[in-house]
Amino acid sequence: MSEFASGPQEWVGAWSEKRAALTPDRDGLVDATTGARFTYADLDRRANRTARLLREHGVEDGGRVAVVSRNRPEVVDLFFATGKTGGVLAPLSHRLAPPELGELLERVDPALLVVETPFLADVRGAMAETDSLDTDVLAVEASDGAGDGADVDAPTYAESLPAPDSPVETATLSPEDPHLLLHTGGSTGTPKETVITHRGVVWNSLNTITAWGLRDDDVTPMVFPMFHTGGWNVITVPLWHMGGTVVIAREFDPGELLRVIDEEGGSVLVAVPAVLRMMTDHERWADTDLSSLRVAKSGGGPCRQSVMETWWDRGIDLSQGYGLTECGPNNFAMPEGWPREKADAVGTPAMHVAARVVEDGEAVETGAIGELQLRSPHAAAGYLDNPDETEATFGSGWVATGDLARVDEDGYYHIEGRKKDLFVSGGENVYPAEVEDAIADYDAVAECVVVPVSDDQWGQVGKAVVELTPGVAAFSLDALRSFLDGRLARFKHPHHLAFVDEMPTSGPDKIDRQAVTERFGE
Amino acid sequence: MSEFASGPQEWVGAWSEKRAALTPDRDGLVDATTGARFTYADLDRRANRTARLLREHGVEDGGRVAVVSRNRPEVVDLFFATGKTGGVLAPLSHRLAPPELGELLERVDPALLVVETPFLADVRGAMAETDSLDTDVLAVEASDGAGDGADVDAPTYAESLPAPDSPVETATLSPEDPHLLLHTGGSTGTPKETVITHRGVVWNSLNTITAWGLRDDDVTPMVFPMFHTGGWNVITVPLWHMGGTVVIAREFDPGELLRVIDEEGGSVLVAVPAVLRMMTDHERWADTDLSSLRVAKSGGGPCRQSVMETWWDRGIDLSQGYGLTECGPNNFAMPEGWPREKADAVGTPAMHVAARVVEDGEAVETGAIGELQLRSPHAAAGYLDNPDETEATFGSGWVATGDLARVDEDGYYHIEGRKKDLFVSGGENVYPAEVEDAIADYDAVAECVVVPVSDDQWGQVGKAVVELTPGVAAFSLDALRSFLDGRLARFKHPHHLAFVDEMPTSGPDKIDRQAVTERFGE
Repeated sequence: MSEFASGPQEWVGAWSEKRAALTPDRDGLVDATTGARFTYADLDRRANRTARLLREHGVEDGGRVAVVSRNRPEVVDLFFATGKTGGVLAPLSHRLAPPELGELLERVDPALLVVETPFLADVRGAMAETDSLDTDVLAVEASDGAGDGADVDAPTYAESLPAPDSPVETATLSPEDPHLLLHTGGSTGTPKETVITHRGVVWNSLNTITAWGLRDDDVTPMVFPMFHTGGWNVITVPLWHMGGTVVIAREFDPGELLRVIDEEGGSVLVAVPAVLRMMTDHERWADTDLSSLRVAKSGGGPCRQSVMETWWDRGIDLSQGYGLTECGPNNFAMPEGWPREKADAVGTPAMHVAARVVEDGEAVETGAIGELQLRSPHAAAGYLDNPDETEATFGSGWVATGDLARVDEDGYYHIEGRKKDLFVSGGENVYPAEVEDAIADYDAVAECVVVPVSDDQWGQVGKAVVELTPGVAAFSLDALRSFLDGRLARFKHPHHLAFVDEMPTSGPDKIDRQAVTERFGE
Repeated sequence: MSEFASGPQEWVGAWSEKRAALTPDRDGLVDATTGARFTYADLDRRANRTARLLREHGVEDGGRVAVVSRNRPEVVDLFFATGKTGGVLAPLSHRLAPPELGELLERVDPALLVVETPFLADVRGAMAETDSLDTDVLAVEASDGAGDGADVDAPTYAESLPAPDSPVETATLSPEDPHLLLHTGGSTGTPKETVITHRGVVWNSLNTITAWGLRDDDVTPMVFPMFHTGGWNVITVPLWHMGGTVVIAREFDPGELLRVIDEEGGSVLVAVPAVLRMMTDHERWADTDLSSLRVAKSGGGPCRQSVMETWWDRGIDLSQGYGLTECGPNNFAMPEGWPREKADAVGTPAMHVAARVVEDGEAVETGAIGELQLRSPHAAAGYLDNPDETEATFGSGWVATGDLARVDEDGYYHIEGRKKDLFVSGGENVYPAEVEDAIADYDAVAECVVVPVSDDQWGQVGKAVVELTPGVAAFSLDALRSFLDGRLARFKHPHHLAFVDEMPTSGPDKIDRQAVTERFGE
């Protein structure tokens, strides 16, 4: 490997400085909560101040800063500043329970911990559960009313920040050096910390720019939390790479999202299906000028075609996304001019992504379901302090996604649920996602999850857990099975049916399959 | 270095297939000479046929194909097809003299040699001068009248091309594997063959896309020859990466360039200063719709401000480019909204380029002149079979450009000529480019080159070789020195003056400084 490929270079640490030189007066960041706007020149000056703060606390040369906060400019500053110092940014979810947060904090072992005031008490509680956490804590005042009256028992971040904003020395690194520690959702057990290198950040950006056709004048309202890969690598970082504008907020409600698209000329939108649906249901929907919106994708789960159609009717080419923390997350793009019957596909692989669908280590035939595996220079380096899981996911030279997929005869990839959700009924594989898709077409069904239950005759059979369309009466299992006749092979039909008032969710409107399984499975 | 960074991947070999999947119906290539248009789906099918041909001749796994041709679709096919087979493309200038061509052919040692019919006789002559060249030769018919009547004593490329255009297996490679052998200008001695890896091609593209803001709907009339890095890495390959359109021709005259911009919606133009000037002088200039042109740069030498102003008057933000085969070639971009007094600068470093100006291995102060050195993942791997020159240029971990530069107080880089042109007069460094810039402001001067001549008192002094503005009378050395008083330190003033009817050029309208030195220097 040439020295020019393996470093030393400044990698992500150069970005705010380079953007401040190339596009100084463009807005790189807009804070919709306060209305504050930050040009790239502003962002670089803020990053210089923050880098000085980080060096005071030893967050350099692989040292770590953890942050527990909603999306706000200080978190962005930490991203650029860790690049400059060679430090590592570990954002942690403020939705984690204190024991989980404590366990992650011990694993991350940050030299500095930055906490937004509404979460100070929880963080203190989490720290109390750890044995030996020796970390400086700085409090960021929420400033939007949240957390007012909290007992701020830590020095404030604002007062600690050095005033000088002149250029700092930027660390030169190997592309293999880590820049982000991003934890997975952790639907089972404590979340894993994924090690994202400078290489991973840059290559995911390159893949996203070339596959989605991102532009230097793009503007996005960014709805994913910054403790998630979605908050950085889905669209934020690629747009900073090109010189575009990212609009953040402490919370984005659907009406505010529509306002931002209208008033800021939003051109790129990636959001979870529930948010996309709430936007179409919002009273502002009909009057919002969507003409600036060029790229729109759903992420974090399958999007109903009925929701997609509402967007298509407005001339927006909304398509399904697919991502994972461990590889990218962006790996696919929908071909230009894709036919609407491919709406449930995630597209074809990006420019620098190789994809394959395997069963027992062998590629399956076209149309067959198997595990999706990916290979790209944007793959993560592994899981922090977890060699077994690292080997299981990354060890083969391909990233084992744990997701099931099939490739159709036109080369489109379709995601068919999680590998671990697969169950066997009478010797046949049943893919819950496929069954759920079929059940979702039944008018009375708003949401559906299929979980396996044990069965004397078949080994396992499916139980359909259904949230009804509001105002619609419940239906019988027989009625459902009659509906499925001809749509789905008999062995895939559910044998049991249960109703819930509201599907449990984890994170941002993502259905919590684990919770459904625990309640309704066996 | 992670396995995901160091390969195996398909790298450039995946591009035509990926583009054919993502943007199948867009024009990737237009041949202005014949009017033929090629979508990305077309280009991939052609590349599959060409890859089959290459494998028949052993051009795979590092095997080489040389090509002597003007710009035409078959040369593009060879670019994509060598990516697929893991072969290496070595385009050779059809302007080389047979002994030089022979020497390069021996060094490249191609398994296959593809020659456009007008150059068959020259190539045969060159091959006759080599000792042991065992190479299959295929002839591409010129089809535009050039070379008609040539004695085509080789099998034709068209007849040799296998018909099947279905997908071929694409080689998986290390990013360090070579993809292109590009020879340098060779103004002294036989040109060097620069080894451009897949890594270099991809990273130059990434730098160019992010620094210049290239878009998926960009269209460029591409004027550089494809035996030069300009024909590939300046704009062609970055646009293919994004899914844009490249328009080529056997020869582009200024009127045809204007027609392409007007009729095809040309949005990006990079050309040598002489071509940019000829376009403004053309009768179509005033009537050509230039409103589609977003990005315009001069390359291959400094562009006169008077020419730039003519473009600025039409609302085109024309700026200076700078490139070199050994690194990139694209390393700089002009900041958005740059002030016109910076017109002679090449801008600030691109996103993934580190630049420094050094003398005797130490960085010079702001404003001082020294050698420009660059570090980027797009650096070439070295020179083919030339360890001494490779060590001299690449050995320090920085690419020594051999060009002089200074950085001004605003961070803009200014190129100040070639290091080897520097001479010492009375113990002081004299940079001919700086002197020439000052002399160029004298009304009567159309072009000027300053060369050193020996002097008993000062060691060396400058001789100004001047091409007069047409219709203007010659002037005296005293008149010139008076003009330079107050503009240039006395020790930099020329002590001798000579006039030429026309400045000798090498390649596409680039002044041949070497020829001037041989005739007027000592």
